Amino acid sequence: MNEIREVIERKAALLETGDAKAILSYYTPTFVEYNLAPPLRQPGDARDPGKLEAWMATFEAPPRREVTQLEITVDGDVAFATSIDCLSAVPRGSTEGFRLWFRVTLGLRRVDGRWLVVHEHESVPFEMDGTFQASIGLEP
Amino acid sequence: MNEIREVIERKAALLETGDAKAILSYYTPTFVEYNLAPPLRQPGDARDPGKLEAWMATFEAPPRREVTQLEITVDGDVAFATSIDCLSAVPRGSTEGFRLWFRVTLGLRRVDGRWLVVHEHESVPFEMDGTFQASIGLEP
Repeated sequence: MNEIREVIERKAALLETGDAKAILSYYTPTFVEYNLAPPLRQPGDARDPGKLEAWMATFEAPPRREVTQLEITVDGDVAFATSIDCLSAVPRGSTEGFRLWFRVTLGLRRVDGRWLVVHEHESVPFEMDGTFQASIGLEP
Repeated sequence: MNEIREVIERKAALLETGDAKAILSYYTPTFVEYNLAPPLRQPGDARDPGKLEAWMATFEAPPRREVTQLEITVDGDVAFATSIDCLSAVPRGSTEGFRLWFRVTLGLRRVDGRWLVVHEHESVPFEMDGTFQASIGLEP
């Protein structure tokens, strides 16, 4: 359990360094990715450092990621983890930053003694008032 | 694995019957729920048949739920499952129905020999074009 917690915290802390390859070393070569952005499910080439680098380049500096309310359930070589995370970033060309709170579920497997992410689901809910706006202003 | 698949398919099929108690018998008394609707995380009383019944009552008939692309990962008494589901329903007072495709991650535990849902994460992504609209029109 502590090992899994470390993987999740380390992976989150690495984002700020901008080291896409180091971050993606915590993922299996292909993983089931339900991202904040469309489509419903990312195509199979999800572990592409270039894609992650391109996303980080849309900000003044690599975003900061905070993991809160982390809960881990594990048996044998399979685990899942839930958390409420916060992304802080300044969009490129902007003087103002933003903070976005979102929900995260990870599915993990122990492969050759190392815990790796095989599934990642990140989301915010949306307003049920007919506007269908993503609820990007929520706080835990 | 087959047992887990059955739980997930059965639970989905039960929705159409409107039997909230039967559906919720597949969940632990408290579970971590990340819903399509706010807040980020539902409060601990999630397994409340009254709440589910009230939601179903907002439609002309209980919605129909289809589970596709189901993938299950299991070891011992812990499992997680990913799928792309479709909800079909007619809002009360409306003549026109809708279909909504969304992503689902379930976390499960085997308790006294029965697989139960201890975590449910349902979501759609949102548009990154500055509108922050939930992507409710996507298809797999």
